[in-house]
Amino acid sequence: MTQSKSLTALADLLGAKVVGNGERLIEGIRPLDQAGPEHLSFLHNPKYLDQAAASPAGAILVQSPDQLPDRDLLVCDQPYLAVARVLDVFHPRSTPVAGVHPSAVVSEDISLGEGASVGPQTAIGRGVTIGANTVVSAGCVLGDGVQLGDVVLLHPRVVIEDGCRVGHRCIVQAGAVIGSDGFGFATVDGIHHKVPQVGIVVLEDDVEIQANTTIDRATMGETRIGRGTKVDNLVQLAHNVQVGEHCLLVSQSGISGSTKIGKHSVFAGQAGAAGHLDIGERVVVTARGAAMKSVPDGTILAGFPGRPQAEWMRTQAAVQRLTLTRKKVAELELRIASIEDDGEEDA
Amino acid sequence: MTQSKSLTALADLLGAKVVGNGERLIEGIRPLDQAGPEHLSFLHNPKYLDQAAASPAGAILVQSPDQLPDRDLLVCDQPYLAVARVLDVFHPRSTPVAGVHPSAVVSEDISLGEGASVGPQTAIGRGVTIGANTVVSAGCVLGDGVQLGDVVLLHPRVVIEDGCRVGHRCIVQAGAVIGSDGFGFATVDGIHHKVPQVGIVVLEDDVEIQANTTIDRATMGETRIGRGTKVDNLVQLAHNVQVGEHCLLVSQSGISGSTKIGKHSVFAGQAGAAGHLDIGERVVVTARGAAMKSVPDGTILAGFPGRPQAEWMRTQAAVQRLTLTRKKVAELELRIASIEDDGEEDA
Amino acid sequence: MTQSKSLTALADLLGAKVVGNGERLIEGIRPLDQAGPEHLSFLHNPKYLDQAAASPAGAILVQSPDQLPDRDLLVCDQPYLAVARVLDVFHPRSTPVAGVHPSAVVSEDISLGEGASVGPQTAIGRGVTIGANTVVSAGCVLGDGVQLGDVVLLHPRVVIEDGCRVGHRCIVQAGAVIGSDGFGFATVDGIHHKVPQVGIVVLEDDVEIQANTTIDRATMGETRIGRGTKVDNLVQLAHNVQVGEHCLLVSQSGISGSTKIGKHSVFAGQAGAAGHLDIGERVVVTARGAAMKSVPDGTILAGFPGRPQAEWMRTQAAVQRLTLTRKKVAELELRIASIEDDGEEDA
Repeated sequence: MTQSKSLTALADLLGAKVVGNGERLIEGIRPLDQAGPEHLSFLHNPKYLDQAAASPAGAILVQSPDQLPDRDLLVCDQPYLAVARVLDVFHPRSTPVAGVHPSAVVSEDISLGEGASVGPQTAIGRGVTIGANTVVSAGCVLGDGVQLGDVVLLHPRVVIEDGCRVGHRCIVQAGAVIGSDGFGFATVDGIHHKVPQVGIVVLEDDVEIQANTTIDRATMGETRIGRGTKVDNLVQLAHNVQVGEHCLLVSQSGISGSTKIGKHSVFAGQAGAAGHLDIGERVVVTARGAAMKSVPDGTILAGFPGRPQAEWMRTQAAVQRLTLTRKKVAELELRIASIEDDGEEDA
Repeated sequence: MTQSKSLTALADLLGAKVVGNGERLIEGIRPLDQAGPEHLSFLHNPKYLDQAAASPAGAILVQSPDQLPDRDLLVCDQPYLAVARVLDVFHPRSTPVAGVHPSAVVSEDISLGEGASVGPQTAIGRGVTIGANTVVSAGCVLGDGVQLGDVVLLHPRVVIEDGCRVGHRCIVQAGAVIGSDGFGFATVDGIHHKVPQVGIVVLEDDVEIQANTTIDRATMGETRIGRGTKVDNLVQLAHNVQVGEHCLLVSQSGISGSTKIGKHSVFAGQAGAAGHLDIGERVVVTARGAAMKSVPDGTILAGFPGRPQAEWMRTQAAVQRLTLTRKKVAELELRIASIEDDGEEDA
Repeated sequence: MTQSKSLTALADLLGAKVVGNGERLIEGIRPLDQAGPEHLSFLHNPKYLDQAAASPAGAILVQSPDQLPDRDLLVCDQPYLAVARVLDVFHPRSTPVAGVHPSAVVSEDISLGEGASVGPQTAIGRGVTIGANTVVSAGCVLGDGVQLGDVVLLHPRVVIEDGCRVGHRCIVQAGAVIGSDGFGFATVDGIHHKVPQVGIVVLEDDVEIQANTTIDRATMGETRIGRGTKVDNLVQLAHNVQVGEHCLLVSQSGISGSTKIGKHSVFAGQAGAAGHLDIGERVVVTARGAAMKSVPDGTILAGFPGRPQAEWMRTQAAVQRLTLTRKKVAELELRIASIEDDGEEDA
């Protein structure tokens, strides 16, 4: 925690407008239900309006002052983005001291940028390039020829295998593995012979890869994660996958080999895609959904095998009424039988 | 392996009753199909009664002596719990020497409890507290301000990030990551801006987290795992998740952000829960099931999207008969058509 | 990259036949769409025949010369296996220097084979055996009594816990955990008491385990992975699982405790199996499929709960037509009603 700031000071930092008492001192930011008079809170979803009105928070970040009359407010177009900035203000990241920790094992031929830091218990291979103000935390292992851009943050115990490249401002969370071999075998008479995986992984700028996620190197060429894409924990990205820019891949989703994903697409939790597919731009695969064939731009896919969400929901509804349908069919059969009997009696 | 023990000696350790020859010497414990005359075995599921009767085991742990007449037995109310205790007797854990290994990198200001051990190749941050008789195994990384209780066991290469707290008698298996950043972004015009994750993770007493599982720190506040809860391998617990006491989360299950789970609940393998849900106490989500909305205490949930198990099974059965249903409908249509034809002929 | 080779020289290495100009020099191997005149490419799937015909590749590996007339070719029975061998020729693995890195922490009593290498920042327990020409990469942790065969490759940061055994020529990718405790608890009055897991994991010869996969040690006895079996990233193999020889377990699949899998079986991505099952030989569980009961040899299983694929596809098709079926039933009801009305009018 840093010292407190006035609403006016925060407004200046955020480019926000103060409504109410700009002199009010704020010591931190908290959710509506945990904030006190010394805290700023935030309302970015109207469904929490009552909670906001009832919150003892000293001030609230809102999009429109009309939402909360008679309260001290910071008004801005993007309250949640403002929350991110205020968190940086009150929780500044401690940057480790620059240079190589004495316990690190580092090849003589590496290139270390100004302000860069290589932490304890690390192992850095031959010909590695580490950009300016980049942080390699404790226990990381970088293979030969790995290239890290500027202002990269590797959390503890990340592995980046030989030759892989990480762009500027990327973040890799603990335990992630970048550049493991793809699952490639030539099977002859039931025996699986390893196909050497000689490609690399490229993370473009501003990519974040989270904890214990695995990204396989290409068999040949590149597995590539597009600029600004964020990948959650325990996600699997197979060899030669191409993920476009500004995508979100949520936890435990998995993308099979050589599949391409267009920019601004989303895979929700535990979703998946088969291999060698072409997934368009702005595609959303909902939780547990699986793309088993290529899908055009803007598709919302649900279920397994994945179908357009509207169709999937209709089918789900029909399945739910299925026992009723079967009862109805049985009833109709009885009515038909009685009609048929009448017919015979007439004859 | 330690030296052998008499049935009577084991009975005293377990508070069990000997039936048969108390002098019989036991060298270890084995499953029914692998035990010899020198071994103790166990019967905790009646369906294995015949296997038990046929087993060459020297003695058997049972709940009731009537189950296996004419055998040497150890009789106790909880045979499987007794198995756990006997395993401890014959396989005592080797405790590493107390103190800090010379290869460890440790801040000067840490607090190390009596009998605690910090293993080789570890990195321990500023202001870390390590309780009495706690073991930090090789390759672990503890961030600044981490607190470990007494008699905690961290297996090799565990990462616990800044500020997280681990209760007494917790066990964390290899490769687990506690306190990675949550998947939180403020998306503006399709660009995902990182929301700093400034909360922590709290593991209450007697929690076990298994291999390569990931638990994200809260955005603000705490992600909390309740006392006595056990979490299997490769499980994902997202930011601000609250798991109650004495729950079981089986391998590859995933709980989305801010979801609360009541005590004594179970998520089976590859199960899941959407975010911001309230999962009651004693809830069971069966294998591959997914809670997509809040569920009351005691619910047994199955399938995707998750429904009460009985309803899910009815629906599954109806789906299995669906091809028959369609045949029946086609048949009825023919019979109706012929009735209609007759009607016209009459006219 | 090594120096270039003539087609004839490559043909000799592969036992292949040259068609066309054997003097042509090849500098590397590339996919059809990325190869130039200096590259060899390959055609192992007829559906890419047009792409092969159009490729500027200098030469192409094919099964039959008739496929690509008027091109320089290398003809062999198994083009994809040949690709694997050519990749080895042009991308020879750099073998680390033999011996123990000064930063490694190694017990005095280990046995180190000729040509074996123990990398930086590693921790090797008591009584460990490391075979000839085996590589233990940076950051690996081997528990007491671990045995590694000859020509094993452990990528960075692998953990192998006490007593586990790894056969000859095995490969373990980064972050994998071999021998973590199984998820075994004796639950009494809602409290979960840990059952010590005192068994081991055995990887037979030629097994590959990929990144961040977890394999639990047996409660008692062995968890065993059969010779030649390959396991992809983020797979979970629970305690006492027995996987046969030459199986493939694709990413994010999970096998529950004590289940046996016969040889040459395949679990596709995100597939699973319940516990205590007997899965036959040559079984295929398709993507996202789950074996919930034992299945005989040769079964192709799909869906959840898993059913024979043909049956599953029929059911899926019926489900897709379900809304039509419901419309049809409604229509029949109207027709029956009108017949019934006529009947009454007649009366």
